[in-house]
Amino acid sequence: MEIETNIPKRILMGPGPSNANPRVLNAMSRPLIGHLDPEFLKIMDQTKEMLRTLFKTKNEMTFPISAPASAAMECCIVNLLEPGDTALICVNGVFGQRMCENVERCGAKLIRVDAPWGQPIDPELVETELIENKPKLVCIVHAETSTGLRQPLEEIGKLAKDYDALFLVDAVTSLAGIDVQMDNWKIDAIYSGTQKCLSAPPGLSPVSFSENALQKIRNRQSKVQSWFLDINLLDSYWSGEKRAYHHTAPVSSIFALHEALKIVLEEGLENRFKRHQQNHELLKEGLEKLGFEFVVDEAHRLPQLNAVKIPAGVDDAKVRSQLLNEFNIEIGAGLGEFAGKVWRIGLMGESSQPEYINQLLEALKKLIK
Amino acid sequence: MEIETNIPKRILMGPGPSNANPRVLNAMSRPLIGHLDPEFLKIMDQTKEMLRTLFKTKNEMTFPISAPASAAMECCIVNLLEPGDTALICVNGVFGQRMCENVERCGAKLIRVDAPWGQPIDPELVETELIENKPKLVCIVHAETSTGLRQPLEEIGKLAKDYDALFLVDAVTSLAGIDVQMDNWKIDAIYSGTQKCLSAPPGLSPVSFSENALQKIRNRQSKVQSWFLDINLLDSYWSGEKRAYHHTAPVSSIFALHEALKIVLEEGLENRFKRHQQNHELLKEGLEKLGFEFVVDEAHRLPQLNAVKIPAGVDDAKVRSQLLNEFNIEIGAGLGEFAGKVWRIGLMGESSQPEYINQLLEALKKLIK
Repeated sequence: MEIETNIPKRILMGPGPSNANPRVLNAMSRPLIGHLDPEFLKIMDQTKEMLRTLFKTKNEMTFPISAPASAAMECCIVNLLEPGDTALICVNGVFGQRMCENVERCGAKLIRVDAPWGQPIDPELVETELIENKPKLVCIVHAETSTGLRQPLEEIGKLAKDYDALFLVDAVTSLAGIDVQMDNWKIDAIYSGTQKCLSAPPGLSPVSFSENALQKIRNRQSKVQSWFLDINLLDSYWSGEKRAYHHTAPVSSIFALHEALKIVLEEGLENRFKRHQQNHELLKEGLEKLGFEFVVDEAHRLPQLNAVKIPAGVDDAKVRSQLLNEFNIEIGAGLGEFAGKVWRIGLMGESSQPEYINQLLEALKKLIK
Repeated sequence: MEIETNIPKRILMGPGPSNANPRVLNAMSRPLIGHLDPEFLKIMDQTKEMLRTLFKTKNEMTFPISAPASAAMECCIVNLLEPGDTALICVNGVFGQRMCENVERCGAKLIRVDAPWGQPIDPELVETELIENKPKLVCIVHAETSTGLRQPLEEIGKLAKDYDALFLVDAVTSLAGIDVQMDNWKIDAIYSGTQKCLSAPPGLSPVSFSENALQKIRNRQSKVQSWFLDINLLDSYWSGEKRAYHHTAPVSSIFALHEALKIVLEEGLENRFKRHQQNHELLKEGLEKLGFEFVVDEAHRLPQLNAVKIPAGVDDAKVRSQLLNEFNIEIGAGLGEFAGKVWRIGLMGESSQPEYINQLLEALKKLIK
């Protein structure tokens, strides 16, 4: 067996991972220290503090799960729901569907509010279900990575509060790319990923839980079905004086996240949002000149995840493969019902650069005649 | 908030993480590529192939879970058990206990065979339970990280087979430090960790499943309770022509594991086992001169995890903290019923070096008069 070690240098403009800043990659290569080393505990505490700033929350229980965002989604759902509880899931893409699968696997009752893929969820439909079915949890995706839709959250957050339900938000692709206001929008639990607008390597997933969410978790009748994701146990590991051993935190990945968070705060959140918006406009202008159409209407478009229809006559797989092999540019294929019909162009974190956009547009010009 | 970035250089002689080879740390800092990039798929396939060599198995379904070993433990248990199934767990330390907690959380019936901490499980007791309770799964820890015990597996593996139970082994601390023969020992499912004798950063956990184990999983009546850890879904992501998107693999951590596996195979498994044994003997000699006693009898002692009784009059926390702060050496505290009574000195992978052992012995000589 020939062992491969030549890794090509790619421009990552898919749905994640995005490119990482060299400072973040260097942080990964720091010598390891123990996960209970006092120096590492400082890094953990600083990581929590910086995450609070990004989520715009005061929640003490804010930390990265030691696994990818799909585990964080599961973590939130299995902690907040007990068998027999009712959950309302808003579905307009792959990740809303994934939430449903998680709800079903923990024995909870599932109510859905659907919208066509690429269109926002209607708060009125949510209110109807809140009145009729009294769910204990309302779940929604802020930035649907499968469609490029930006979901307004404020109204639905207020409704959940009014009808005494907890509010869970998927902020995997939104955090550090567009504004996320956990406390102002009355979000009780939120999760994100490291490999999108944070531009750290994939593998960790920041979460945060409000006091209401923790109260529900602490007063459960049944144990959380996952030992690894049990917030009661993770709380003792990530908080307080005595760090009770739970698992071994992924030290190097946390070094990387810590460095990525520093970079975000050095740039400033509002500056970062503005940069994402400006680069989106540059891309949009270029794509429209080439005849591309966006999936989502302008008012609900994510600047960091641009879903466009593949023009008639263009060979999806062939062009993506040419972009990768001839230009070292990765863009994303369509997922689920958008497979073969849509491309997803990510402008996330470090990958959101005019230079990359121009390279992509030039390449597309050559490949799509 | 003052943001910390000065990471001290530690000699890691605790229960993990062990020190990583600079080649492994460098691999972490390679530029990111997409998790569906053809170049990354090669790395995935090579990682699987090298893991098969280490586990001494032909199992196709051999790959790293994208989370720490406690998630891999949970993965094996929730996939192999359905509600109402009976599992037999062998318990003689923290990690056997943890298996019990996982079994209870998936609604299975739990039968225990216990041995005092630091003593091996008696196969006769296992056979009695196999006859009386007909468990579908027998679970045991190969290298108990909480006690330093090396559990013989062959006889219990044969018994499980004879009585038609699947055999699950925790090889977190054994893999690449002492011999693990998955196929010869009739093991149906196994999991390990990256941060022990593999000397890669913590965060991933290699697993392997036999054809019998996969048959059980494919023919389940109920869905696996964890979506993130469902082997049916992970199989489509890690195997075959069409890599069905499941989660985003932790690209950098897999680069590191891939490099660590190459280093293990360059050294050769048998050489590596011999090195671990020889360094254990060097440590043992030195510790005995200082008056230390081992927890485990010589026949069942792990070379890579040395549990010794803290001598009377020695202040546990103070000495460990002096070792760390004055000598940059980390050793492990006792866990569970051994807390305050035992130290755990790891000689795992890159940390298993005569030079480090001598430094530790010198330091202990100064600190314990």
